[in-house]
Parts: sequence; C-alpha cells; structure tokens
Amino acid sequence: MIIVMKQGTSREAAEKIAARVAELELKPHIIYGEERNVIAVVGDDRRKDRTAFETCEGVDQVMPILAEYKIASKETKSEPTIVQALDLKIGGGHLGIIAGPCSVESEEQIMETARVVKRSGAKGFRGGAFKPRTSPYSFQGMKEEGLKILAAAREETGLAIVTEVMTPHHVDLVASYADVLQIGARNMQNYQLLEAVGGCDKPTLLKRGASATMDEFLLAAEYILDRGNQQVALCERGIRTFETHTRFTLPLASVTYLQSKTHLPIVIDPSHGTGHAYLVPPMCSAAVAIKADGLIVEIHPDPPNAMSDGAQSLTLDVFEETMKQCRVIADAVGLKM
Amino acid sequence: MIIVMKQGTSREAAEKIAARVAELELKPHIIYGEERNVIAVVGDDRRKDRTAFETCEGVDQVMPILAEYKIASKETKSEPTIVQALDLKIGGGHLGIIAGPCSVESEEQIMETARVVKRSGAKGFRGGAFKPRTSPYSFQGMKEEGLKILAAAREETGLAIVTEVMTPHHVDLVASYADVLQIGARNMQNYQLLEAVGGCDKPTLLKRGASATMDEFLLAAEYILDRGNQQVALCERGIRTFETHTRFTLPLASVTYLQSKTHLPIVIDPSHGTGHAYLVPPMCSAAVAIKADGLIVEIHPDPPNAMSDGAQSLTLDVFEETMKQCRVIADAVGLKM
Amino acid sequence: MIIVMKQGTSREAAEKIAARVAELELKPHIIYGEERNVIAVVGDDRRKDRTAFETCEGVDQVMPILAEYKIASKETKSEPTIVQALDLKIGGGHLGIIAGPCSVESEEQIMETARVVKRSGAKGFRGGAFKPRTSPYSFQGMKEEGLKILAAAREETGLAIVTEVMTPHHVDLVASYADVLQIGARNMQNYQLLEAVGGCDKPTLLKRGASATMDEFLLAAEYILDRGNQQVALCERGIRTFETHTRFTLPLASVTYLQSKTHLPIVIDPSHGTGHAYLVPPMCSAAVAIKADGLIVEIHPDPPNAMSDGAQSLTLDVFEETMKQCRVIADAVGLKM
Amino acid sequence: MIIVMKQGTSREAAEKIAARVAELELKPHIIYGEERNVIAVVGDDRRKDRTAFETCEGVDQVMPILAEYKIASKETKSEPTIVQALDLKIGGGHLGIIAGPCSVESEEQIMETARVVKRSGAKGFRGGAFKPRTSPYSFQGMKEEGLKILAAAREETGLAIVTEVMTPHHVDLVASYADVLQIGARNMQNYQLLEAVGGCDKPTLLKRGASATMDEFLLAAEYILDRGNQQVALCERGIRTFETHTRFTLPLASVTYLQSKTHLPIVIDPSHGTGHAYLVPPMCSAAVAIKADGLIVEIHPDPPNAMSDGAQSLTLDVFEETMKQCRVIADAVGLKM
Repeated sequence: MIIVMKQGTSREAAEKIAARVAELELKPHIIYGEERNVIAVVGDDRRKDRTAFETCEGVDQVMPILAEYKIASKETKSEPTIVQALDLKIGGGHLGIIAGPCSVESEEQIMETARVVKRSGAKGFRGGAFKPRTSPYSFQGMKEEGLKILAAAREETGLAIVTEVMTPHHVDLVASYADVLQIGARNMQNYQLLEAVGGCDKPTLLKRGASATMDEFLLAAEYILDRGNQQVALCERGIRTFETHTRFTLPLASVTYLQSKTHLPIVIDPSHGTGHAYLVPPMCSAAVAIKADGLIVEIHPDPPNAMSDGAQSLTLDVFEETMKQCRVIADAVGLKM
Repeated sequence: MIIVMKQGTSREAAEKIAARVAELELKPHIIYGEERNVIAVVGDDRRKDRTAFETCEGVDQVMPILAEYKIASKETKSEPTIVQALDLKIGGGHLGIIAGPCSVESEEQIMETARVVKRSGAKGFRGGAFKPRTSPYSFQGMKEEGLKILAAAREETGLAIVTEVMTPHHVDLVASYADVLQIGARNMQNYQLLEAVGGCDKPTLLKRGASATMDEFLLAAEYILDRGNQQVALCERGIRTFETHTRFTLPLASVTYLQSKTHLPIVIDPSHGTGHAYLVPPMCSAAVAIKADGLIVEIHPDPPNAMSDGAQSLTLDVFEETMKQCRVIADAVGLKM
Repeated sequence: MIIVMKQGTSREAAEKIAARVAELELKPHIIYGEERNVIAVVGDDRRKDRTAFETCEGVDQVMPILAEYKIASKETKSEPTIVQALDLKIGGGHLGIIAGPCSVESEEQIMETARVVKRSGAKGFRGGAFKPRTSPYSFQGMKEEGLKILAAAREETGLAIVTEVMTPHHVDLVASYADVLQIGARNMQNYQLLEAVGGCDKPTLLKRGASATMDEFLLAAEYILDRGNQQVALCERGIRTFETHTRFTLPLASVTYLQSKTHLPIVIDPSHGTGHAYLVPPMCSAAVAIKADGLIVEIHPDPPNAMSDGAQSLTLDVFEETMKQCRVIADAVGLKM
Repeated sequence: MIIVMKQGTSREAAEKIAARVAELELKPHIIYGEERNVIAVVGDDRRKDRTAFETCEGVDQVMPILAEYKIASKETKSEPTIVQALDLKIGGGHLGIIAGPCSVESEEQIMETARVVKRSGAKGFRGGAFKPRTSPYSFQGMKEEGLKILAAAREETGLAIVTEVMTPHHVDLVASYADVLQIGARNMQNYQLLEAVGGCDKPTLLKRGASATMDEFLLAAEYILDRGNQQVALCERGIRTFETHTRFTLPLASVTYLQSKTHLPIVIDPSHGTGHAYLVPPMCSAAVAIKADGLIVEIHPDPPNAMSDGAQSLTLDVFEETMKQCRVIADAVGLKM
C-alpha cells in the first residue's frame, strides 16, 4: 500500500508512520517529495486492515495496491478454467448457453420450454424452484416439487440443470437435483452460503451483486474457491445506476476486464441486465461478440402469463431466432457454441 | 397500475388488453387520449406480476401505482412505532443512540468502550461477533465468545446490546445474548434470514442494502413484520454512488421520506455512511437536526489498531464530544436523547 | 399525465384537482380506486410544468406519460435519418467509422494517423482543436491552427473531419473547417451552443452527458432539430456509475433503446466509454454486433506521449486489426461498413 | 504519482519506465516489492497527462497523488474565503441565506417574494431570468426584462441579487444587474463561461454538476480563480444516483469534505438536492447543523402555478417557518445568520 502524508507535515511524522508499518512486519520506504512525503509499504498486507493508518496523525490517504483475491487471480493460475456440467461447457473458448424460465411453474411449462432449449443447441437449462422475491407477497417458487420437475426435464433432454440455492441449509437438497448451483445477485455476499457451496462439489454460477465492485465480486468467488470448489463461473447481470429505461445497466466491459484478471469464465445475463425482452436478443449478440464465456437467458412459452419476470422473458420463437444469430457471431469471433 | 399503449395503436388493441386485465379480476378503465390510449387498472394488483403486460402487443409501458408493502405502511398504522430494548428507545420522539466498535476484539476493549458509551448517555452498545467481511482472509469475528463478552458489558453497564446475525440458523444463538438483532446491508435481501428474525421476538435493526431502493427496503422490513415481529427499526447506512471521497453516500433525505411512508423508526449510520472518522461528528449533527430516530456510531479505543473499520471509527474522546453536540441539537429540534 | 391521490383522501379532493386540470385546458378523468383515486389527464401537457400538481393538497405523486421530444421521435418520422458528410454515412444500415487522436498535436501526428485511418476503410477523422479539459493547467488544444491541420488531412485523404465546438461564438469558425461538428458530453446541456449549432447546416455529433437520462439526451437533440438542423447523430459515450475499473460505464443497450424511440442514428464511443485501450477493441466488436450506426475511436501513433487521453488511445496497428474484426462482425449482422 | 507494475514483470521493465519518467524531468524511485515493483514519481506532474504511462509495457496501473487544483486548495490559502455582496456574507462563520423563485415571472411575483425574504432575515435573493431548461418547449425565462425586475427588488429591499448566467457573451449584461453570478450545474464544465466569469469582478456561485467528482468541481472553480476572480462560493445541489424518490441525492458530507480541502465557502441547495418541497425544510436544518456556509432555497407565492420547479418550491409561509428553525440550529452550532 501507499501512505500519502498531508502537505506540510514533517519528515518526523513520516518516520513515525514508517515505524508503525515496521511493527506490522511490513517494509516501509519513505519517499520525500517536493510537496508531500509518501510511504510505500512492501510486503503482503492483505490480512491487515489497510485503511486504519488513515486515522494516524499527518496521514492524508491510504491507497491499497494489491488486490485481495489470490486463488481467483490469473496470476495464480493462468490457463482458463472450464466450468463443465454434462454437455454444458463454459470457458476456454466454449460459449455455454443456459436458457429457461425465471420460475418453475408446472411440468408442462418446463417440458415445453426444455424441448425448445434442447433443439436450439443450448446445453444448459435454468429454472427457479426457490425464488428470492422482493415482496413477501409474490410467488416464492415451487420449492422441492420444482426441483423434481427440473430433474425430469434433464432426464428427457440431457440438459444440465442450473437452479438457485438461497440459504446454506438448502445446499444439499438443491445439489441433489441440480447440475449447477446458482447464487443470486442478492446473495453474492451471503458468506455462509458461499462457504456452504464452496464445501460441495457442484459447479457454481455466482452472480454479481447489483452494486458490487469487481474486487468484491472476485472476493465472493474467493470464498467458494478457498473452501475447495474450483468450478466457479462468474455471471455479470447488470449494475444499479441512474438509468431507468433498463432495469439494470449491463456493462459488457466486465467480460474483458474479468478475463484479464481471473481464470474463471464469465457468463452474461442479458435478461436481468436489461429487464425488457426486446433488448435481450441484441444484447446476446453483443455479449457473444465481446467473447463472453456463456449466456443465461430467460424464456417462457407465454411471457404475459409468467409468474415472475415476464417482461424480460423471450418467447420460445424469439429465443430460437436469437440462438441462430448468436451462432453466426460466435463463428465470426471464433467461439465454440 | 397504468398501462400506456403505444402511439398509433388502435382502440381495439386497448380493448384487448382491458379484457386480459378483467381476466385477472381487476377493473380496467380505458382512457382514449389525443396521442395515446391508457388503461387505468383498479384493484389490488400487488400479488400479480405487474410488468408482464409490457410484452403484450401494442403496450408501451406499465407503471405501478400501489407500493407493495402494507404492514410497514403508515396507511396501515399511523402512530409511530417505538423500538425498545432495555433503556434504549428508538422512535416516537426518542433519539436512540447506539455506539461501540465494529468488531468485538477482546473483553478489555469492550469494557473500556462500553463504560464510555454509558457515561456519554447513550443507551445502546454495538459490537460485531459474527462479521461479514468482503475478503475470506479478513478477521471473521470472535463468534460466540464475542457474544459472551457483549453480554458481560450489558451486565456491567445496562446498555442494550445490538449485534449482527448473518444466517438463519444462528438466530436463536445470537438472540440468546443480544437485545437487538442487526441485519446487515449485505443481507437485506437474505429472505430466509428475514423470515427467521421475523419469527423471533427480538427488536431488529434492518440496514438498507447499498443499492436498495426505498420500496425494496420497506419490502424487506415487510418480510419481518409479516412473520409477526413488529419491533423493526430501519437503518440508512449510505448508498453506492460514483462518489469516491466517501465510502458510501449518505442521503439524509431518507429520514424524512421514510417518516412520511412508514411508522417504523429510522436510524442513521454515519460511520458506514461516510467511511472516514472526520466526517462522522458533523454527520451526526445533521442526522439529529433532520430528526432521525436514532444513531449507530462506530468507536474504538485505538482506531489505527482496530481489527476492522478503523478508518471510520471515532476515538472515545471524540465520541464524547460528539454526544455533547448532538444533545444541543436534539434540544433545539425537540428530540429526547 | 397521471395524478395519484393519497390514500384516504376524499372524492372531493380528487374533484378539486380535476377542476384545476380543466383550467389548464386539459381533460381530467377521475378513476375511483379501491385504495386510491387517480386522475388521468388527457391532452398535450408538454408545455406545462407537470410536476407542480404534486404540491396540491391530497396529491401523492404525478407521473408524466408523454415524452417531451417530438421532432426527434420515431412517431414523427419513422424512417431512419442518415447523417452524411463526404463519404461518411451514419445510419440506415451504414456503419460510419470515425477515428483519430484526442487532440491535434502537430501536422506530422495528424497526417500519419489520417493515412492509417484512410487505409483502414474508415470514412471519418476525429481530432480536437478546441479541447475541454478538466484542469485549467492541461493542454487546451491548438485552436484554429489545429483546425487548419485537420483541413489539410481532409485535403489529402478525403476523410470527413469531425471536431468539437465548445462555445456558440466559435460555431462559424469551426464550421468553416469541419465536416461534422461535435458537441461534447460536458456541453450536452449548453443550450446556447445547441441553438447555435441548430442554426447552421453542418452535420452534428451530439454526445450524451455522463449523467444525462435518455429523455434529457433526446431533448438536447430536440434543441438542435427545432432550430432547423436535421443532421444530428447521437453518441453514447458512457455514463458515470460506481464502477472504477472503467472510466465510465458504456451501456450498449442504449443503441437498441434509442433505435426504438428515435430516427436519429447512434454512434458508440468505446474510448471514453471504457477509458482503457485494451477494452476498446472488444467493445468495438460488441457495438457492431448490437448494430450501432457508427463508432468513434481514439487512436494515436504513440499513446504514452499523447497530450491527452493516452490511456484510452489505440496504437495505429491495433486500430487496423480492430477494423478487420469489426468488418467480419458487420458482415455477420448485415451492416455496411 | 505511483506507477504499479504488473506481477511477474522484470526489474528491467521497471527501470525502463523509470527512465521514461526521468525524461519528463520528474524523479522516479523504484521500490522492488515481494509481488510487484512500484515506481514512486516525485515532482509536480500536474501538467502532464498522468494516465498515459498505463499503456507502456508491463504497467498495471497509474495512481495520481497530487490533486490538480492549487489556488482553490487550503494548502495555498488556509484562512476561509468570505464571499460578500451587499449584506450577504457566505463563509468564515457566516451562514448566507439566498431565497427566491426558480424563475422571474412578473414584477408582482418578485416583489411579493422579495419582501418576505427580506422580512425573514435572509440577505440574498435568487431568481432566474435566463433559464436553462431541459426541453426547448419549456419557458425559457424573461431574459433582460427579468434582470430589470430583479434590480428593482434590490432597490426596494437591499437584498443581493443572485442570478444565473448561461453563456460567455451574456456575462457583461448579467453582471450589470446582478450582485452574484450563478453558474448552473449543467454549465459547471462550460470552460469558456468559467473563464469569462473569472475575468470579471462579480462574486460567483458555482454549482456542482450532477455527476461531477469533487476534483472536477474544485478544478472548475480553479478556472475562475486562475483568471483573477477570487470571490467564488461552491454550491452542492445533489448528484445523480439510482434513487428515484428524490430528484437528486444531496450528500451533506460534501460540506465537511470541501471545508477540509478548500478555503472557498460551501452553499447547500436543498431544493434541487431533493426535488420535493416537503423535504426542503428538514434538509435546511441538517445543512445548518453540518455548518454549511450558506443555503439557496426556491420559494414561490403559489407553487402549483409556478412556471418552473413548482414541486420543489416552498410557499412563503413555510419558508418563514423554515428560517426560524434554521436560526435555532445556527445558534446551537455557532453560525452567524
């Protein structure tokens, strides 16, 4: 870290801070500047509370340099991680496509949808059985019954089932039906859940919180990795900004940024990322063009009658068209779909 | 809700939508405008997915009118709720002050701090035993041992203990030591946790998520209220914005807005809300002046050596000065402290 | 607009508001709801201050329905506008590419760069002569001398010159050298500048302000259109959010949203939209895939020595590679480049 | 500045960068770390483009240390600047109150309002004659006729007139009537306007842009100061965030932050900062409690009939009550009003 002293403070003030740094078994280097003195601190300061030096006399600000994640870092593992479940491959040049309804509503709805997903060439099927809902009065999901329907859809189609787990004590139950565990945006910093998922051996899709920084996102993944589970895919699903014409703002630059920092694959969720069905197909094209490692898309046989997220769900027809367009672009940029 | 049709769409298109509305047992009123037709929908549409109509042919946008929370609403209960634990009273003209360190680090640290809190006239004592930390490598709290130290501080001082619970299966444990359960910002939408806390009889301090809207915040409270626990205080602790000179942006207008919408009391957290100790005392003054129902403040005997949040912790001396200033302003605006 | 009355207010309160609405020569329709009464107001209320009704007794909120722009609206003109200058065509299926340095620094730098731009197949050349700089101590541009160098580059290459005008009384001067006038993000709501540019006959590239809403952006265009100049291209260059790993956040969904609302073409600026050179080529690909009508890209013969925006400037080599990739994707999605 | 090298890059890479630093007549200090090498650069690098080093081989990131403003800095001038016009004093312990309507609409409206402002004890009167409006179809102000009415109000009441100037060639005209020139939020980075105002001798109120960082805000002030005008008051009027229940988000911590960085006084605008009249009086109290140097408040004899900003305008009665409350709090915190 870099400790910047206030202008006009003495050499002694900087030396005093340097002495405190040395007490923490870190090496301080004081640089006496024209306007300010600065202390560069050498050593692994990840486990210390770096910001507290800011309250010391004469200190203006403290700037961390090392990112705190390690296992997730490309510096630790340079080859890309491929997250795999049945035929679904995400990362390492594979564009993994996951589609399905927001919520499991009935066996009929799931089977009809899963057949279309299968036919489109996608390899993953999504559907929520445990639903985190903003309002306690909204449909909360079919729970275990929903998981059974999803398992039946896998039985018939061979698609890998991606479904959300909301709380640590459901991990075993959900993992007994699912092929990929999803951790939702609202739970990105639910650390007991991250640890529980880290302790099982299911591939995991970790969604970015709506206001999480990139470092917070990678540190959430680090919780899972640190417990042993190395099959983690990151999912960018949009951030909260002042924009109101989209539900969230989907920053595709996240794909390239994350690919430069981590070996974990990056999936884009254009459904939550925009919130409106008409924006989803073009955003799928853009995500493929920027070489995302996967897509997760909400679709429904009858969006206006969906129990949840109808406004952002593609009809099955539009989804099939969208997959064709994605295939053309995947070919153009050299991704396997 | 209001369904706005696209310009140039026919009367028949609006009638078709109105017919679908009627199928949901809601009453549609079509208003034929000069440029657009609009359908006003009468009836309680809270349990329906309101936005799905947007995908119907001819619909431009759907605008909800009713807020989805009911029990939290001032329309349901007009007199203010007073959250009370031992001598701590929050709401209804009482300014409840809670102070203490971010983390419980040792019995000594807690006792020294609690005595100052007591002396200052505050009635609540905060301290984290289970700590949600961004990095898995940071100090994670003293856990049950920490809770025991907090209980000892209550024993000596009579202060009400406010401490965080992070996961549903810890609720009983934490409730057996604490006087007020805190739900942290990262867990504002951890619905199983909200339900578990809603099912116990401890007063609860619910922190706003860093990117939660006001409706999301009130609906999170609604989860707790809906399970039976009516002793809920809301805590504004700052939102994530583009500002970088503060850790979060603390919007004090939340106090007045929330007081106009809900009977639940509003506590301000100027420590997380700013992230820097020098900003905390003036923000306390401002929060009292705007008639917040409470304050929760991080303090530490030696901030540069704190295990967490040192940069935003007041020294014990500064805290005592701050309380004096708050008292002057509380008197000026007519709050009991 | 829709005027929502507070819960518990009387029918008379709603009737009183309706009477005020009628005074403004608008038609009120009262809908008596189960929980609230609502007044739907029919008629063109664009020229009135719509929000003021909110201060009337019994009113809870006022929701506008009509967007305030007219000439920019697709409802006014359904066929896409093609902005054209020399061989540069933006819109209507044409992908217009504009590239060049942030600032004009010397004739040599401009000529070297322009030749590469020409060779790459792009038709527009950008370069700042009048530079809006955050600090008064930064390089402020070569001013008219810079414009002369740009004109010389057009002379040799035939590229259309795109350059910024910062203040109304420079419009004639800049227009005498430029083929396209650029209005920068900081000046998006500099109304005298918009009016001055609206009064001349040069094609104009209007950049979105960093915190402008879509309606504000389209209304800024409306100022230009309203004065007679119909050759306006909109440029999305990123919005300010809490993200710090990019300079701004570039929301590509803007392209599809704007194409659904306006006939004006949409240009993407991935250089300002990301702030880092390594993010620019992938963002160019994504922008083409989502069918933007144009791209404006900062490039420099020697980015580390650039007078401004070096960090986000592509080298000439990388730019040529980027153009090749864009061409492949443009072919895949059916855009002419 | 601090240049952070990528992990795994050689000592030679760092030396090469250091050599380039030396070419710019700055002194490089290389610190060889355990995981990374870092180059601390000593010397005034304000006039250089600091970020461009990021594109050099082996560089991970560049972190500036020196803020770029100088004249505005408290390090340059430690005693607070008092901005003064007639009896209006802003700063140095004086709480300067400015009130009046958004727009000048008629002589009658202005006189009625000015008399109440005078009676309340405020010393400044605001009113817009040139109005920057989002839509070209909205009321654009009474222009010079409006300025004359304002001058007449000063004549009668002795209040200092604060009014906006929107474009450089109006500066002389507006300055011939006004006592304080206001630069609006939309024009905070209209550099020609800043320079023109910097070249005249009128006290100036500079509003923060809705997405301006603190450094950008202070650098905008620096443009004015650098031209010679030292009578600059800063005005925080709210930033754009994801919140929708307020028009902007008003971060009161700006007051304390800015007072720690600059000698210029800070005025709070609770009207634009919240957008709703009922939020203005409590926000005034909070602003006084945090020791803002001034307030600027929108008021109107009949808000529902205001030509602009009706929803956020206080009635004259509410304004007088608000001033009484402010006075009590000003006394409590030791501000002269």
